[in-house]
Amino acid sequence: MSAVTLLTVPTSGPDDTGALGALAGHGHTASDVVAVIGKTEGNGCVNDFSRTLAAVAWEPRLPGSAVTVFSGGTEGVLSPHVNLFVRDGKRHEGFDRGLVAAAGRTRVLAPGELGRAAQVDAVTETVGKLVAELGVSTADVHFVLVKCPLLTSDKIAALRAVGEEPVSGDTYESMGHSRAASSLGIAVALGECDRTAALAALAGEAEVSSARASASAGAELEDCHVLVVAESTAAANPLRAMHGEMKDALDLAAVTALLDEVERRGGRVRQIFAKAEADPSGSVRGLRHTMLTDSDVNSTRHARAAVGGLLAALKGDGAVYVSGGAEHQGRPGGGSVTVIYELPGPDGGGA
Amino acid sequence: MSAVTLLTVPTSGPDDTGALGALAGHGHTASDVVAVIGKTEGNGCVNDFSRTLAAVAWEPRLPGSAVTVFSGGTEGVLSPHVNLFVRDGKRHEGFDRGLVAAAGRTRVLAPGELGRAAQVDAVTETVGKLVAELGVSTADVHFVLVKCPLLTSDKIAALRAVGEEPVSGDTYESMGHSRAASSLGIAVALGECDRTAALAALAGEAEVSSARASASAGAELEDCHVLVVAESTAAANPLRAMHGEMKDALDLAAVTALLDEVERRGGRVRQIFAKAEADPSGSVRGLRHTMLTDSDVNSTRHARAAVGGLLAALKGDGAVYVSGGAEHQGRPGGGSVTVIYELPGPDGGGA
Amino acid sequence: MSAVTLLTVPTSGPDDTGALGALAGHGHTASDVVAVIGKTEGNGCVNDFSRTLAAVAWEPRLPGSAVTVFSGGTEGVLSPHVNLFVRDGKRHEGFDRGLVAAAGRTRVLAPGELGRAAQVDAVTETVGKLVAELGVSTADVHFVLVKCPLLTSDKIAALRAVGEEPVSGDTYESMGHSRAASSLGIAVALGECDRTAALAALAGEAEVSSARASASAGAELEDCHVLVVAESTAAANPLRAMHGEMKDALDLAAVTALLDEVERRGGRVRQIFAKAEADPSGSVRGLRHTMLTDSDVNSTRHARAAVGGLLAALKGDGAVYVSGGAEHQGRPGGGSVTVIYELPGPDGGGA
Amino acid sequence: MSAVTLLTVPTSGPDDTGALGALAGHGHTASDVVAVIGKTEGNGCVNDFSRTLAAVAWEPRLPGSAVTVFSGGTEGVLSPHVNLFVRDGKRHEGFDRGLVAAAGRTRVLAPGELGRAAQVDAVTETVGKLVAELGVSTADVHFVLVKCPLLTSDKIAALRAVGEEPVSGDTYESMGHSRAASSLGIAVALGECDRTAALAALAGEAEVSSARASASAGAELEDCHVLVVAESTAAANPLRAMHGEMKDALDLAAVTALLDEVERRGGRVRQIFAKAEADPSGSVRGLRHTMLTDSDVNSTRHARAAVGGLLAALKGDGAVYVSGGAEHQGRPGGGSVTVIYELPGPDGGGA
Repeated sequence: MSAVTLLTVPTSGPDDTGALGALAGHGHTASDVVAVIGKTEGNGCVNDFSRTLAAVAWEPRLPGSAVTVFSGGTEGVLSPHVNLFVRDGKRHEGFDRGLVAAAGRTRVLAPGELGRAAQVDAVTETVGKLVAELGVSTADVHFVLVKCPLLTSDKIAALRAVGEEPVSGDTYESMGHSRAASSLGIAVALGECDRTAALAALAGEAEVSSARASASAGAELEDCHVLVVAESTAAANPLRAMHGEMKDALDLAAVTALLDEVERRGGRVRQIFAKAEADPSGSVRGLRHTMLTDSDVNSTRHARAAVGGLLAALKGDGAVYVSGGAEHQGRPGGGSVTVIYELPGPDGGGA
Repeated sequence: MSAVTLLTVPTSGPDDTGALGALAGHGHTASDVVAVIGKTEGNGCVNDFSRTLAAVAWEPRLPGSAVTVFSGGTEGVLSPHVNLFVRDGKRHEGFDRGLVAAAGRTRVLAPGELGRAAQVDAVTETVGKLVAELGVSTADVHFVLVKCPLLTSDKIAALRAVGEEPVSGDTYESMGHSRAASSLGIAVALGECDRTAALAALAGEAEVSSARASASAGAELEDCHVLVVAESTAAANPLRAMHGEMKDALDLAAVTALLDEVERRGGRVRQIFAKAEADPSGSVRGLRHTMLTDSDVNSTRHARAAVGGLLAALKGDGAVYVSGGAEHQGRPGGGSVTVIYELPGPDGGGA
Repeated sequence: MSAVTLLTVPTSGPDDTGALGALAGHGHTASDVVAVIGKTEGNGCVNDFSRTLAAVAWEPRLPGSAVTVFSGGTEGVLSPHVNLFVRDGKRHEGFDRGLVAAAGRTRVLAPGELGRAAQVDAVTETVGKLVAELGVSTADVHFVLVKCPLLTSDKIAALRAVGEEPVSGDTYESMGHSRAASSLGIAVALGECDRTAALAALAGEAEVSSARASASAGAELEDCHVLVVAESTAAANPLRAMHGEMKDALDLAAVTALLDEVERRGGRVRQIFAKAEADPSGSVRGLRHTMLTDSDVNSTRHARAAVGGLLAALKGDGAVYVSGGAEHQGRPGGGSVTVIYELPGPDGGGA
Repeated sequence: MSAVTLLTVPTSGPDDTGALGALAGHGHTASDVVAVIGKTEGNGCVNDFSRTLAAVAWEPRLPGSAVTVFSGGTEGVLSPHVNLFVRDGKRHEGFDRGLVAAAGRTRVLAPGELGRAAQVDAVTETVGKLVAELGVSTADVHFVLVKCPLLTSDKIAALRAVGEEPVSGDTYESMGHSRAASSLGIAVALGECDRTAALAALAGEAEVSSARASASAGAELEDCHVLVVAESTAAANPLRAMHGEMKDALDLAAVTALLDEVERRGGRVRQIFAKAEADPSGSVRGLRHTMLTDSDVNSTRHARAAVGGLLAALKGDGAVYVSGGAEHQGRPGGGSVTVIYELPGPDGGGA
């Protein structure tokens, strides 16, 4: 069981690990870090070296058990930052419940496994193991984050050299396939669908989505990094999580419903984690969008900018976590949303 | 006096003039058109041929007195569409006031005049003339739209060949200078500042902005197209306008204040016209943004995507008019906002 | 039989039809135009409105029998221009052979036919008809140019709405499929392979390419525009054509072989028409390239810039026709090349 | 005196330091490295994190005296690679002359000094010191490479906060100003102009350029890294250098003149270092180019792709060093070119 606290710290660049200093100010050390979930300022696509740079800067400073998930792309008003989930066993008076988190990695995936059943299974297994480790029911899980590999030109060529065909010959497209497999692996692990349905969805023959799944792909890793965030009665702290789903990129109502509920509970929003994508139908609420026909700017960049513009305005600052490419993470054209919030302490103040 | 109605029609491409068919369905003809204000799907920057294509398709179909303003860039959820301001003298029962509009053009501006006092003066003069033509006080004006030229490589080279230095040697930057001069011309015409203050602001030595100004630049014209929208007691129709200012790109409060007021008055939002820009300070509310350091995507594209994501969600559809580059159109980092809304008729229904 | 001359004229913008004035200076009128083959300055990808703008500007000025092929993308040193193939029956003294050309169109292709056998067949048929019309053997054909449609989001959605799956759900990728089918149609018509081999190649199960094929795709048309250029003994003019193949983007030797042969024959290069693509293997001569992993700039843009840089330097000016995406137009990673040159007249001068 | 050898090694990514292994194979260790000059695969502009990633990977593995210069942008056929200048005192039989190199750094430059006289002076001083260290005359210097800082949004804001105005408020433009100042500093140090002329050139009031200067800017450093490459009679090795100047991006003749001279001397080309830029006049040899009006792709990317396409074809592989933005590095629109070549040994073989 890992009761956790959450620190959200702006960064001055992808290699800025200054948040570790902020940690110390809160009485923690780097060895307490469970996961670093960052938004870095690259293009969020295949050749996004801001993610690699962040990984290179952070990983030597973290315990081997910690995972990093860097999601590229701070389009529009999104602001580069890191979210640190930090082990914090302190039992806060007045609370009989609290936020917990566990992190782990799947085995290394071979390029030929990317975007296929093997990836679904590997993610399912790791998520399942982490949920078990937390000792919570899947109903208490509000957020599962996966960072997964993509196919580079090198990997595609290597596969073809041995007569294997990758899930896609296009590097940018491989990101979508990898996110899809990871998200379906999450859905299976959380009991939102069975493996058969997940594989049918992967083949485009069924619609399955999880409002708690958040997957992003990158060239900087070979396995999948997984973080599970839940509430547990084994912890006692003021942090809570809630999840919902934007039905489309204009779904203000879904988000305000979550924020209103936080307010109703007397809470204060600490962070919003959301996925966004260009509606694959080419239109939103019947009106054509141009994200999928823009050959200059990839659709994931557009989607992050637009949904980021909305969520940042609702949160009141740009340090929200909006990640692009929402295959099976919320319904098509929409996206999963998790809000982490803080309840007031028994004296009415925060923790 | 030109009482007007407003039609907002989605387009299937920059050269889609099908909205003229919709006009007919409302009992109007092309000869009634005062202005076509469209969002087209190019990059909104120097080499945006979607604007030129739209102009080539529309202009032969419109009366010589009409102006067109095509603003490129439908990033994110923004949806390509046209807004037709159409002369409609019908006096609606139960109304003693209504929306009016007038359109005109400045003289052709020489490339050396772009972004300089001569452009400020030309715009001031044309706006002044149109306000006079409408017979309204400047307090009743809620929206002044200008489409103005930019500097291409050819024009810059031609100027330099005769020993003149353009306001900028960078084509993309020249758009900002041109928008600035147009907006300051509007501010002078509306009495928001005097000419001296406007020229000081143009030189970067004073801060002047108008919350009613909206300027965009394009390579497809040599003069400035100008549209003035106001309320007048000489008209009698259910359309009204209101303007405000987003202080920054997250200024949800400013927009909801306008929308709430529309609702309070029993109105229904018909269109939102807004300007957006990357905060020139490099941060929004103290958090760094990366729009000005992104060498792959120009900052105007980012700004439109982000503010468009917010306004489209608030309006409930993507056919909002968000234009990028808000020099002196609202304060730095913010932008002007005009809402056109419709009051219910005496029987409670719309017009 | 249409003996032709060739005029290459720089353009000041996609809608610049000033070349028609140059025509007049050569004693021709617009009614003599067989084809306008232009390079326009858009991105050459899905949302390239420079092509549409050029088509809108040119087509009303040309006879119904003429075709236009606008290829977007003048990256690097490539310079926007048009190549006019103009009917010119004049028999030049001292020549018993000359350049001829014929143009035509396929039937309109349904979106579901794009990139599939139906498109191969339609192109084969039209090319065959044009070769027959010219009365030349296929050995005398040195250049077949096709402009073909692509799939937009609208078309993809419409197909799916009726339960059909397009050849690709990605708009940019659909360009490649359309070019592939057109090129294989050319190969069949020129007897370079049979239909079975062409369809196998389309399915990725065989390698077939034509060094005389040049195909480009665009959103601005629904049928395929086809131009066949050949030499014929029925004409008598100083223009000649020669074709070759760049084996890869560095294949300077292949081009200098052609240019040296032109020189050996006493000729003068008038134009080079070439195709270029990013080597699909991810490397050129064993060294990795990054065109296929660059999510900011599409690989066709990279390929045009690089091969354009080479060919423009060899020609001595930037008004060369380099088009991106060379599926089956020369071997993978390479591209077809056609040189049009002019022999000296009997007195040693040009025609 | 540092006699050097040169190793050019392809990289699999910006953080690939595998070339150090190749070093070992040649009997050298990392401590012998004088400079690592690499092409990395980012956009070569402001937000190019591939350069930072390379610097982070390489710098801890090199002696403190070594400098790194990572130039972003491998557009088109350019292939990511590193060039290692390695100390190698071995006196090769049959040679009485050889390649030498020295590396150093200027002091840290304050943001307000960027692109101004202070930067010119700092570079002049360091280049002068390195030339003196090598004990060569400036006539024997064939290549001076500088990597210099740029202005980020943060630095611009910080300057303005204290009432200082930076050389440019645009981050991308600041790269050009920084390269200009560095190049003029080189020109002064090499005696190609005096300080007064250099400052006039910096102000745009004189034309000065050096055909031996190569400068690139990046966000990953605060001082300037400088490398001077020369021939010296104090060394005895088969490597030689030669420099020239492309007058424009089509100047094939200038490059073949160099390559022909290498061949005439019996040498073998080892590497080409070149600068490239979009002709600031907007045209090349009288024909318009569109690099400066393309708001989707910056002109430095276009220029690298085009000139890289030419030079890679001439060299026969894509691992050439072409860097974009050639202010005062060769005349406007052209660029400096240095060829490093290897003479055969006394027995006719290479060293």
